[in-house]
Amino acid sequence: MMDYNKLALELHEENKGKIRVESKVKVENKHDLSIAYTPGVAQPCREIHKDKNKVYDYTSKSNLVAVVSDGSAVLGLGDIGATASIPVMEGKAILFKSFAGVDAFPICVDTKDVDEIVRTVKLLEPVFGGVNLEDISAPRCFEIEKKLKEVLDIPVFHDDQHGTAIVVAAGIINSLKLANKKIEDIEVVLNGPGSAGIAISKLLIDLGVKNIVLCDRKGSIYEGREGLNWAQEEMAKITNKHNEKGTLKDIIKGKDVFIGVSGPNVVNCEMIESMNEKPIVFAMANPIPEIMPDEAKKGGAFIIGTGRSDFPNQVNNVLAFPGIFRGALDVRAKDINEDMKIAAALAIANSIPENELSLDNILPKAFDKKVSENVADAVKKAAIKSDVARI
Amino acid sequence: MMDYNKLALELHEENKGKIRVESKVKVENKHDLSIAYTPGVAQPCREIHKDKNKVYDYTSKSNLVAVVSDGSAVLGLGDIGATASIPVMEGKAILFKSFAGVDAFPICVDTKDVDEIVRTVKLLEPVFGGVNLEDISAPRCFEIEKKLKEVLDIPVFHDDQHGTAIVVAAGIINSLKLANKKIEDIEVVLNGPGSAGIAISKLLIDLGVKNIVLCDRKGSIYEGREGLNWAQEEMAKITNKHNEKGTLKDIIKGKDVFIGVSGPNVVNCEMIESMNEKPIVFAMANPIPEIMPDEAKKGGAFIIGTGRSDFPNQVNNVLAFPGIFRGALDVRAKDINEDMKIAAALAIANSIPENELSLDNILPKAFDKKVSENVADAVKKAAIKSDVARI
Repeated sequence: MMDYNKLALELHEENKGKIRVESKVKVENKHDLSIAYTPGVAQPCREIHKDKNKVYDYTSKSNLVAVVSDGSAVLGLGDIGATASIPVMEGKAILFKSFAGVDAFPICVDTKDVDEIVRTVKLLEPVFGGVNLEDISAPRCFEIEKKLKEVLDIPVFHDDQHGTAIVVAAGIINSLKLANKKIEDIEVVLNGPGSAGIAISKLLIDLGVKNIVLCDRKGSIYEGREGLNWAQEEMAKITNKHNEKGTLKDIIKGKDVFIGVSGPNVVNCEMIESMNEKPIVFAMANPIPEIMPDEAKKGGAFIIGTGRSDFPNQVNNVLAFPGIFRGALDVRAKDINEDMKIAAALAIANSIPENELSLDNILPKAFDKKVSENVADAVKKAAIKSDVARI
Repeated sequence: MMDYNKLALELHEENKGKIRVESKVKVENKHDLSIAYTPGVAQPCREIHKDKNKVYDYTSKSNLVAVVSDGSAVLGLGDIGATASIPVMEGKAILFKSFAGVDAFPICVDTKDVDEIVRTVKLLEPVFGGVNLEDISAPRCFEIEKKLKEVLDIPVFHDDQHGTAIVVAAGIINSLKLANKKIEDIEVVLNGPGSAGIAISKLLIDLGVKNIVLCDRKGSIYEGREGLNWAQEEMAKITNKHNEKGTLKDIIKGKDVFIGVSGPNVVNCEMIESMNEKPIVFAMANPIPEIMPDEAKKGGAFIIGTGRSDFPNQVNNVLAFPGIFRGALDVRAKDINEDMKIAAALAIANSIPENELSLDNILPKAFDKKVSENVADAVKKAAIKSDVARI
């Protein structure tokens, strides 16, 4: 196995980080300076001062996304703080660029206070066309996202929630085609009711899933259970329709789909055997999934997806967020709403023609560049249709 | 005359602003992704979490400057706000890049509250290696600068103050060589006691000027005069040693140097005639100077500098700020202190060899790229000597 840690340190040190800011115009002589800077630059300033919407025409706002984090839930590293989170946020920024031509800049905010984070992003709104929240711990991330959506006039998207939800939804949509099941008919169990787990559940419900049961270490989540945070209490109201109680081992019985956004090895072969026919398994704990694919297969899993690139059917957020922001920015969207998220999930799923779908090919490859174009197109149309587009 | 306004609008609209964010590393396949992003990226995060100083090794911080403005005093346009100020701040960012290879990013903060601006910049400190304040109204700019210098561990520089002061000082140093006067012996009058005027006065005093009298529309500034802000009251204590009272017309009599950072046409030919022999005139109001060069010459001006590129001896901040930040970033300076500013002024002055000095050539040309190198070298040495360097 490659020593990615060593290679990563070398890469980051040699390049002194991963992003740079470049000029889009040349500044080689007095004439250039007079147009890009004084005295000419006063004119776009005046025009924007007269009509704020012109900021999209005369500045980089129309293609610029803030990658915002407080470093409170970085990868599997936990709360390492704003400074230590920068390599991840710079990494996200270059993915935005490589996959969709979006300019993105890391805004690593050195506070954990929800209102202070919200206020900081609000104060920085002028230069950005969108906000991607990243690696912020639950349930604070829900509150920050909600408040930002209220105060900002540009789209806000928490990738750990919605990016993951959209790609999982795309995987399930395609899995159901192969399993010949309807989304309305399936029963789902999800282990790990954090930011991704809750967003996945909500999106699946919006897509037609009638029953989904959330589980944590203590077992299923139901109304009135103790030890839930407010976001989980809200979920208890709209999930677990039959008030199922018990551990994951009990709840998984008879289910069509298992979704894991939890930890390693919490599912075994026998638990897969206890599921409904053609069980669909998304075991996304990283680097060690809830159940290894070969083990899941032994238990009869029909389709297995993980978060890893060395197994088939990788759930990789890069399939979603670049195209979503590309689409949102292109129509100067005010929001990234549910319709746009559903459109993105369908676009990812439909990026694989039905005749190319197979048990090991339910999600496009990360480097399939047409995916972000498909997603951008679908998101743009959904934005226009749902009236959040400004052009 | 060129229609810079029209050309500027076209340039800004065609390019949709002037900056873009680029990746310094390639992201073309799974392997690249595993090193620039997950799983490898976790390793630099861990290292920074263990030792915060490593942020300079593994992120873009070591070459990244925030161009911070609230848009309260933009060019000659006044308080046009954060959004309308963006074209200027993007312009500043590309000058940083073109003249010294510094990555700079516009942080246009949508508030006028001093403490909120300070707090916002503090919260964003992790990603930046330096802060350039820009176009913030006086006397708020002094307070913001002072507070930021207290709370930040990275250098803070208000270009409208210190950039201008450094270039004017360089111009005066070279003018005095030609006039054969010593800096200790000269008497200076400065019209326009705003941010630039006050910074120029302080730097000239640090360079050895014994007497300088500040004037505003009401005349000279002296201790106890009414209508002064707190920054001007402080200046009254260290300037105007002979307690001169009267209008600019009175005060300019017998002075060696006139410095204008005020408005158009406030000085006439007769006022220049009333100055000491070989009068040095820096009339920097833009676009129309305090006195036009031909008029000043009629009055006997020995050397005339303006802010305009179409006259000789242009006072252009681009001679100072790119090299200053280049030098400060290269040694990971904690501060840009007086020693570094003086070093920068001398480096700019000395960029013209004495045998090339002439009445129309006391300041280097804006596009003389060796100037920023000279400034960077001098600033680095001064930072090390004054113990604010970290490498």
